[in-house]
Amino acid sequence: MSQVTWRSGMNETATFSLFFRGYGHNRSYYAVAGIETALEHLESLAFTSSDLSYLQSTSLFDPAFIDALAAMRFTGSVRAMSEGVLAFSNEPVMEITAPLIEAQIVETFLLNAVSFQTTILTKAARIRLAATGRFLIDFGARRAHGPDAADLAARCSAIAGFAGTSNLRAAARFGISPAGTMAHSYVLSFGSELEAFRAYASEFPASTTLLVDTYDTRRGVQNAIAVAREMEGRGERLRAVRLDSGDLAPLAREARAALDAAGLGYVQIVASGGLDEYSISRLVAEDAPIDGFGVGTRLAVSADAPQSESVYKLVSYAGRPAGKLSSGKESLPGPKQVYRRTESGRFAGDIIATADESPPADAVPLLHTVMENGERLAEAEPLDGTRARLESQLAMLPAENAEFTGPSLYPVSISDRLIALQREVASEHA
Amino acid sequence: MSQVTWRSGMNETATFSLFFRGYGHNRSYYAVAGIETALEHLESLAFTSSDLSYLQSTSLFDPAFIDALAAMRFTGSVRAMSEGVLAFSNEPVMEITAPLIEAQIVETFLLNAVSFQTTILTKAARIRLAATGRFLIDFGARRAHGPDAADLAARCSAIAGFAGTSNLRAAARFGISPAGTMAHSYVLSFGSELEAFRAYASEFPASTTLLVDTYDTRRGVQNAIAVAREMEGRGERLRAVRLDSGDLAPLAREARAALDAAGLGYVQIVASGGLDEYSISRLVAEDAPIDGFGVGTRLAVSADAPQSESVYKLVSYAGRPAGKLSSGKESLPGPKQVYRRTESGRFAGDIIATADESPPADAVPLLHTVMENGERLAEAEPLDGTRARLESQLAMLPAENAEFTGPSLYPVSISDRLIALQREVASEHA
Repeated sequence: MSQVTWRSGMNETATFSLFFRGYGHNRSYYAVAGIETALEHLESLAFTSSDLSYLQSTSLFDPAFIDALAAMRFTGSVRAMSEGVLAFSNEPVMEITAPLIEAQIVETFLLNAVSFQTTILTKAARIRLAATGRFLIDFGARRAHGPDAADLAARCSAIAGFAGTSNLRAAARFGISPAGTMAHSYVLSFGSELEAFRAYASEFPASTTLLVDTYDTRRGVQNAIAVAREMEGRGERLRAVRLDSGDLAPLAREARAALDAAGLGYVQIVASGGLDEYSISRLVAEDAPIDGFGVGTRLAVSADAPQSESVYKLVSYAGRPAGKLSSGKESLPGPKQVYRRTESGRFAGDIIATADESPPADAVPLLHTVMENGERLAEAEPLDGTRARLESQLAMLPAENAEFTGPSLYPVSISDRLIALQREVASEHA
Repeated sequence: MSQVTWRSGMNETATFSLFFRGYGHNRSYYAVAGIETALEHLESLAFTSSDLSYLQSTSLFDPAFIDALAAMRFTGSVRAMSEGVLAFSNEPVMEITAPLIEAQIVETFLLNAVSFQTTILTKAARIRLAATGRFLIDFGARRAHGPDAADLAARCSAIAGFAGTSNLRAAARFGISPAGTMAHSYVLSFGSELEAFRAYASEFPASTTLLVDTYDTRRGVQNAIAVAREMEGRGERLRAVRLDSGDLAPLAREARAALDAAGLGYVQIVASGGLDEYSISRLVAEDAPIDGFGVGTRLAVSADAPQSESVYKLVSYAGRPAGKLSSGKESLPGPKQVYRRTESGRFAGDIIATADESPPADAVPLLHTVMENGERLAEAEPLDGTRARLESQLAMLPAENAEFTGPSLYPVSISDRLIALQREVASEHA
């Protein structure tokens, strides 16, 4: 496609808009992520010599076009929402302005980065809301779609306020707190559960969570109590026990009662095993005495909505606004801005407008210029800043949109000027 | 966990079994993949100096343990099913025998590789069966969970007999056929659809597929017909038109009729847009005149079942069989073998047996030793071999298990000897 564009001499300035269409299952918002990965890609875009040799080997490409690719860097500008911002259907979360071929060639990567990471951050935000203050740990690395996906899911979990991750590589890569876990195989390898617990507590006296369901949960809790008492004798405190199977609410109540009866009210209870926002909210509603949740697979793959309908549309070429018109897949023409109004500390409605019209009263713009001439205008934001932004955005989300049992439409309107522009573009092809 | 094991001097030989529990939504089999990635990981396992510095920086680890990790390589053996084999619930697809710490430390990576890739290959196999001979192209890179996931999904699609991928990087990496695509933005950038079509056909006269739904599908088909006639004048043939939105069956019928009426019976029709095994089988059942399908998101994320319940269980330690006993999560103790019987060219039932018992009559073993002393016994198989294996396996799958609208249980039994061993292990902890 780019070779045809190149041959036709069509390399004027283009603007592409990246946005989401509709919402995933039970979703009412998107928590934006992947912008960081996208910017890193744009800043370092270059075909390697092995890329170029491969292209040559296909016999599909003109050597002069391959030379053009060899010299190509991303020289454009990017306007984007910040990671952690909540976005809604049809709102551009990123707009790329660059010579057409550069903007075309990055399409797949940008969609991949923003789509995947936004999908996972949205899931993580939903789980965070469901846990209502109980702590959360990411256990998703085993089932994520590859090691890189596991790391990026751990990063999303940290942005959503998870307290740690069992993925040490992600912890190292993104400066997240590592959270140790004990596997059933660890307990099995000792043969005696009590010995397995003792050995672990002796190694990590300050941070031991004992997995109590390898053989029988009730007996596991009794063994944990025995070890906790031994620890007390050494002036140490067992941190927690973990339940990983069975009916979690009654098991947690029994464990809580047994721990309390043994004078171990400070020992926390962690639950895990196929958890997500739905099961966590039920456990919270039942008032199960669970202090924290380990969340794995369903977070790392966003099990009930593993994809988001992201699109990357040409909205302007050579100064001329453009839009796709086929039924059900219309796109809004021209570079745009998204404005958000707030009332009494809650989001009150967004307006999608043309990029150059005057802002509506009392509304703040959500797209900011983050790259010009192929260079980032600021360094990557520390994760704490992104985490604080998402937390504040979630606090401002209207209560009905924060529900996770069904989609609830947040009001997004289109400015008069943008509606007029859309009609104009449509009439050209009528 | 490994530091505790190390401190306790517990580094005897362990065997871990990797298998799937139950089936994903509507699934009745697993098409095994990820073994290649797993073996590459085991063969190259080594902590880098930056890994080790990170571990040190956490203050969680004993310097002597970090030294032990620095020297650690994978020295064990692996028995595994071949990629492309169909496996069933509870059947070990891989067994690792190694010093305990080595086998523990690779758990997350092995589960991740085999679980993710098997999930995607299973989805690709289902789509392949649904397409009943029509050609398939992978379009999934935009929505896969990261670029590496996109490449591995493209590899799975090639194993499942897809004819090509739009992911050029995966094509280069795995020697798959690249398939060019035209985006709506390409057509929009020209302003005139006819000019956009002409330019593409002139660049790639042997392999042009025209995307006809940017403005209006009927008019798009007329423009494609005009270009096809111009191509005929130059002795060339338009390969195909692509429909990417709307009601595909009637649109395909109209397009077929228009192309045929224009004497262009050779121009193929390709359909795309949110397709999966369900929608493809409906289009096939309706006899829609579609020659090939572009399948993207739903393949790349296995949309209706994005995870598989893979587990990695200790089954033997220091010569002693082990098994987890907690309710609903039992595991079969000891190293095992899976035998498969065939009748009249179809799979007739599998037997999970201990690794050392004599094979049942007329049954073939599915686990083969692929690594010994940390070294692979054979080079990676060329993709064509894996593709042929999956094709032959799918042809031998009983018809009821090949259905994709509901799970249908294939018979898997457990050998008498394995049942006896399981009772023995359970009684030790009763």
